[in-house]
Amino acid sequence: MNAKIITIGDELLIGQVIDSNSAWIGAELEKINIKVEEIRSISDKHDVIINNLQELNKNSDVILITGGLGPTKDDVTKKALAEFMGVELVFHQGSYDRMVKLLTTMNIPVKEAHRSQAFVPSNCEVIFNKMGTAQGMWMEKDGTIFISMPGVPYEMKYIMENGALEKLSDRNPEGKIYHKTIMTAGAGETIIEEKIKYIVDNLPDYIKVAYLPGLGMVRIRISSFSKNSDRNEIEEISNRIVAALGDIVYGYDDVSLEETIGNLLIKKGLTLGTAESCTGGFLAHMITRIPGSSKYYEGSVISYSNNVKMAHLGVKESTLKNHGAVSEETIREMISGLIKGYGMDVAIATSGIAGPDGGTAEKPVGTIWIAVGDKKNTVTKKLQLTKNRMKNIEYTSIASLNMLRKFLSAQ
Amino acid sequence: MNAKIITIGDELLIGQVIDSNSAWIGAELEKINIKVEEIRSISDKHDVIINNLQELNKNSDVILITGGLGPTKDDVTKKALAEFMGVELVFHQGSYDRMVKLLTTMNIPVKEAHRSQAFVPSNCEVIFNKMGTAQGMWMEKDGTIFISMPGVPYEMKYIMENGALEKLSDRNPEGKIYHKTIMTAGAGETIIEEKIKYIVDNLPDYIKVAYLPGLGMVRIRISSFSKNSDRNEIEEISNRIVAALGDIVYGYDDVSLEETIGNLLIKKGLTLGTAESCTGGFLAHMITRIPGSSKYYEGSVISYSNNVKMAHLGVKESTLKNHGAVSEETIREMISGLIKGYGMDVAIATSGIAGPDGGTAEKPVGTIWIAVGDKKNTVTKKLQLTKNRMKNIEYTSIASLNMLRKFLSAQ
Repeated sequence: MNAKIITIGDELLIGQVIDSNSAWIGAELEKINIKVEEIRSISDKHDVIINNLQELNKNSDVILITGGLGPTKDDVTKKALAEFMGVELVFHQGSYDRMVKLLTTMNIPVKEAHRSQAFVPSNCEVIFNKMGTAQGMWMEKDGTIFISMPGVPYEMKYIMENGALEKLSDRNPEGKIYHKTIMTAGAGETIIEEKIKYIVDNLPDYIKVAYLPGLGMVRIRISSFSKNSDRNEIEEISNRIVAALGDIVYGYDDVSLEETIGNLLIKKGLTLGTAESCTGGFLAHMITRIPGSSKYYEGSVISYSNNVKMAHLGVKESTLKNHGAVSEETIREMISGLIKGYGMDVAIATSGIAGPDGGTAEKPVGTIWIAVGDKKNTVTKKLQLTKNRMKNIEYTSIASLNMLRKFLSAQ
Repeated sequence: MNAKIITIGDELLIGQVIDSNSAWIGAELEKINIKVEEIRSISDKHDVIINNLQELNKNSDVILITGGLGPTKDDVTKKALAEFMGVELVFHQGSYDRMVKLLTTMNIPVKEAHRSQAFVPSNCEVIFNKMGTAQGMWMEKDGTIFISMPGVPYEMKYIMENGALEKLSDRNPEGKIYHKTIMTAGAGETIIEEKIKYIVDNLPDYIKVAYLPGLGMVRIRISSFSKNSDRNEIEEISNRIVAALGDIVYGYDDVSLEETIGNLLIKKGLTLGTAESCTGGFLAHMITRIPGSSKYYEGSVISYSNNVKMAHLGVKESTLKNHGAVSEETIREMISGLIKGYGMDVAIATSGIAGPDGGTAEKPVGTIWIAVGDKKNTVTKKLQLTKNRMKNIEYTSIASLNMLRKFLSAQ
């Protein structure tokens, strides 16, 4: 099966919004062996939408459309879809009821404009959107499947993950595809490739190994595209790869580093605290975005100022004066401040110059110290990163979580 | 003048890379009054490239192409371009000399594969790329301008900024287009539309108003597409819209809420601290991702546990027992803990049930309290949000920043 993606909105064409939806959809469709052949961003004009639908309809099995479904008048997608399908827009009571329920929960008064969002093309099957008022719409014409979704990424993802992907997978005649993803942190793509080349080079043709690098981590996806293969074959290959990679492997199938750490802490019955300077809350956010993290996470002191470092983490004035806030001595005292002062079992501390400015000759932008410790031991590490503030913040958070993972696993 | 953008590469279609080039190019072209009508991401196959060039050539003044010029896949795009143009690929000595110089500076040995990068279509004018070995190429056919560039963002940007944009601007015979974006927080698209409908409905045809909603905020973009209009007309319309919208407007032209607050704090010479429970560090992260935020941001206590709430924010045990952690009483004490205990001038506190579990009949998931205060006053607000943890965390952070903005503006 092949697919085309259409993203609608002038904001994409004038560069006010980067189209991240298409990449996410492309990655999801690839997993169920649907090949995205083209991505198009177009204007939110009636005729433009119709022309593109007509053009792409010719050689496509699936056309996914995002954007242009909000309640205001600059949204013309639904009208264009209905005209293209040769059907009317009809009122969909189920969508309206859900919308009213959602708006009521959120204390938003229901208005006339909201009612218009419950109109859908008459040939459409609604895929409910729990995250917003614009519904997902599944339509078919001349053997092509059309899926229209709102452009807000989390709404689009909700519709894809709660209906659209499963329905598409059921329609794909090519049989089952098996995947397994090995999650690694702490080594780059080149090093990983070198370590497992002798395994990968000798795999049968229908087994594909892909490296999906992210910041501070690489996912290794093993896929089997044969009807004759089974899950056992993938498992066996995965085991060999994991054995060759050693302790950079932290989990499987898109489990996050922070979830893995949460499970380790629960298993060991330990509480965690963090003291963040340069990461400024992002590390705490990574930990707390996991549901149930309150079971093991006590909290954090974000000590952006030296004042907070001294008064609430017990960092000595002399340490800050003699070694600076970005130093091994300071992060060691931040760790001990958390363990002693807050009674946490294990702790992470970060301090560095996130940039883009603020560096010196001795400590240039991107100089960062991270530490992990408990009552007995503290381990530290110095990183030398880039001048890119957001990249430094995220990479430091990931690296310090990975340091904690190794620290806990070694115990 | 109108333009189309083609980005080439299978990595875009399977979602390994998000196409950020197109948005950047779109924004730059808009400034010189060239309208991007379509963005297409396509596969790096010879026939696919030629078909798309033929198709888009028909109604385009300019076609910008990124990707497919590296040393490995080099041949595909350039060969397709040459075939489409009906010309040969010829060796370009100037490009080769520059490349050898660049590689020598970087201590990279010059290889045979590099030589192939100096071949360009014979009708092309080279725009030198100081950042890499693939050159920018300016070509013309049937009145259409073609610009081919490498896909690496900083190389593409170098070529655009050091040749391509200036040459394009010189060729554009039209007048200027004006835009202005009004940034709002705290009201939905429907409410905004209702408030300014009487203005928008009576605007001349060449003025377009678009609503660009995000989580907790809506951007309103006013555009003028006429030679006879000028910046004053847009400013005048903007002023009328802002007057109608009142205090939900926080700024213009893509300034962020956290930046706006930073500027307010600097202007007033105040320091800020935060105490986060349900937002778990995300609020601190929003504040600290702004370069220079250490000027006004002291830090945060992320009090995920009651233990930290009591020991480090001075929340009373009786308050937690009688009212619970998610209550107006608790967040008031969190604020006063920051102001008194940490000496911050103004403070934000959040506490709630982020979900997806953990709710009760009285306090369902999505029940969230936010507060803002200083030495004299504290204001509080109860939110009833969804069951989506990440959405609740982000929305609460944005809403509490917006509450701080209003608090500071009222003083």
